[in-house]
Amino acid sequence: MSDASIIPADLPLRNDLVGEEPYGAPQLDVPVCLNVNENPYDVADAVADSIARRVREVAPSLNRYPDREHIALREALCRYLERESGASLNVDEVWAANGSNEIMLQLFMAFGGPGRSALSCDPTYSMYPEYARDTFTQWELCPRNADFSIDVAATMERIAQVRPSMVLLTSPNNPTGTPLPMDELRAILDYCQTVGVADAAEGTHPVVVVDEAYIEFRDPGVPSAVTLVNDYPNLVVSRTMSKAFAFAGARVGYAVANAGIINCMRIVRMPYHLSAVTQAVALAALDHTDEQLAQVAHLRDIRNDTAQWLAGQTYRGIPLQVAPSQSNFLMFGGSFDDRDAIFKDLLGQGVLIRVVGPDGWMRVCMGTDEEMEQFKTALTQTLRRMEQDA
Amino acid sequence: MSDASIIPADLPLRNDLVGEEPYGAPQLDVPVCLNVNENPYDVADAVADSIARRVREVAPSLNRYPDREHIALREALCRYLERESGASLNVDEVWAANGSNEIMLQLFMAFGGPGRSALSCDPTYSMYPEYARDTFTQWELCPRNADFSIDVAATMERIAQVRPSMVLLTSPNNPTGTPLPMDELRAILDYCQTVGVADAAEGTHPVVVVDEAYIEFRDPGVPSAVTLVNDYPNLVVSRTMSKAFAFAGARVGYAVANAGIINCMRIVRMPYHLSAVTQAVALAALDHTDEQLAQVAHLRDIRNDTAQWLAGQTYRGIPLQVAPSQSNFLMFGGSFDDRDAIFKDLLGQGVLIRVVGPDGWMRVCMGTDEEMEQFKTALTQTLRRMEQDA
Repeated sequence: MSDASIIPADLPLRNDLVGEEPYGAPQLDVPVCLNVNENPYDVADAVADSIARRVREVAPSLNRYPDREHIALREALCRYLERESGASLNVDEVWAANGSNEIMLQLFMAFGGPGRSALSCDPTYSMYPEYARDTFTQWELCPRNADFSIDVAATMERIAQVRPSMVLLTSPNNPTGTPLPMDELRAILDYCQTVGVADAAEGTHPVVVVDEAYIEFRDPGVPSAVTLVNDYPNLVVSRTMSKAFAFAGARVGYAVANAGIINCMRIVRMPYHLSAVTQAVALAALDHTDEQLAQVAHLRDIRNDTAQWLAGQTYRGIPLQVAPSQSNFLMFGGSFDDRDAIFKDLLGQGVLIRVVGPDGWMRVCMGTDEEMEQFKTALTQTLRRMEQDA
Repeated sequence: MSDASIIPADLPLRNDLVGEEPYGAPQLDVPVCLNVNENPYDVADAVADSIARRVREVAPSLNRYPDREHIALREALCRYLERESGASLNVDEVWAANGSNEIMLQLFMAFGGPGRSALSCDPTYSMYPEYARDTFTQWELCPRNADFSIDVAATMERIAQVRPSMVLLTSPNNPTGTPLPMDELRAILDYCQTVGVADAAEGTHPVVVVDEAYIEFRDPGVPSAVTLVNDYPNLVVSRTMSKAFAFAGARVGYAVANAGIINCMRIVRMPYHLSAVTQAVALAALDHTDEQLAQVAHLRDIRNDTAQWLAGQTYRGIPLQVAPSQSNFLMFGGSFDDRDAIFKDLLGQGVLIRVVGPDGWMRVCMGTDEEMEQFKTALTQTLRRMEQDA
């Protein structure tokens, strides 16, 4: 493979992309991969059989284009959302795409653009500014509180100043794991209904995007924003099958919103964006929701245990901080003054985590019990070495 | 399904998208579908078995993200291009995406944008202006000659005036079927190396995109633009498995270009844009290239026969014109003063074709022998009725 940074000077790459790198965590062949927040448990044999069977059924007609509206999949996602979150939704309130990446890109393409702004609360998912950049949308941030919760008053103030077309809230937040309480979300949704949008027609209000990529890892009984869609026509909830649902390789994300928002997304979606094969494998996996979600409760336990363990460790004499997480990952540290050295030292021991988030912090996602033991052993070694080097 | 045109007035849809409709031909359940240029022959059982087997192999690890660089697929596409077009290419000169739609979107995202222009030759593929619109790229057209060939001198003149960042040439052209002779392409490529780009750094030249979606239907022995990639660093050829390769449902398009252009696309691609399942099914199908392309020669014969038959028909006393085609479709008519009436009359007889192209013309794609018989019978009826109504 040639170096991605080699771009001949005579190519008219967009001026604002000059010097940019492709987004993405390193894909390394390492024994313990805890860097991209996957569900570490393989897809079960019975599910794999169903997937192959469904694909065999659609394979003869792959010479034909797929159902552009992917109705059967949207119906299955409605059933999933009813079961998972108790939401009662119609097929025209759900929309799927190739990963929640593509959901977000479609939202930015529909509501962003030159003259428009999108606003989020810092720190948050590092991909958001890329969607903004790719669609020429101005990217605005309001700082979170010290505990990484949203500063609701400050966020409202920034919304009034910026008058963004999109407000992005992440629940739980990535990379901090912080949940977004429903009363705070409702407050921001209500507030947005009173605010106009810069460079848009009078009477329009910001679209509020709640990114629930990791929502299935929340504590049982906590509501999801998908239950608010009927109350708030400017709310769109982004979800994915990549995380708790253990289906990252199939690339299926989806949006839940008022049909009006989905009609806006349909204007900018690529025709036939979702293949017949993707539709088939997603349908097969949704038939096996129990198996796909089987390890979620255990991963929650691992998260809680690991948080407790991390809080008992020290870095150069300072106890590690651990951000309270409702997700399958933990942001920890707070005082790491050389994250890259820690990253490399762990990698040398076969454990891949992620340098991401505010200065001094790193993120680890939950693996199997065995993987977490290897992580703990490696991190103990690394912290001990750092102690000695200090 | 709710009406796609219902978009509440308080949503901040991009101002230039207000009133726009989702792109796409009607998806109707009709006996004879000749409207979206598919290969009408089902995927063979042996190929379908291989596809299901490959998917079963990757299914257990679908909890993990796919290979972001899809190396195995790019290697297989290199082998395909060597065999199909005699091109000798490296893996870093090939790049795949979810349909050539996504290839084109990535190109527009990398090289287009506000202040930039893309230029093509009219009439051409009706999706191009949507890519331009979605990426805020100015869309410019230079008229083709009366026989739908490119007016090379006029195109060069427009390139010099507009100084576009992208020149889109389609070979064979859609919806006309017109081939692009290699000497004309070389002339434009050479010329572009002498032209600058508006709103780009000094010394940059337009990227020339040759869309070869239908290239496998060209007459045997005619070269493909992929053989020019090593000579022209600003050339990118877009291809697809959707047409001759009979794989529209799997959504696999690909680009062939200098690694520098592909590195530009990598900056704007969504991370993990191509699922592990898509990679697996494409690899399986490429293993069966013979079977997948088995009907191409026959479809060429059908095209030639159908062109001859159409040229023998009359509309209100005027012989039908048929644009010479190197593709699996034919644009015909030229004097239809009510295309919608013809469309509806054919549809009433169970035959779906496409109202597209310049006024007075319609497009039909090649079906099986049986489907073409039904098309001919239906069109004969329709033309007879039109004669009587006149």
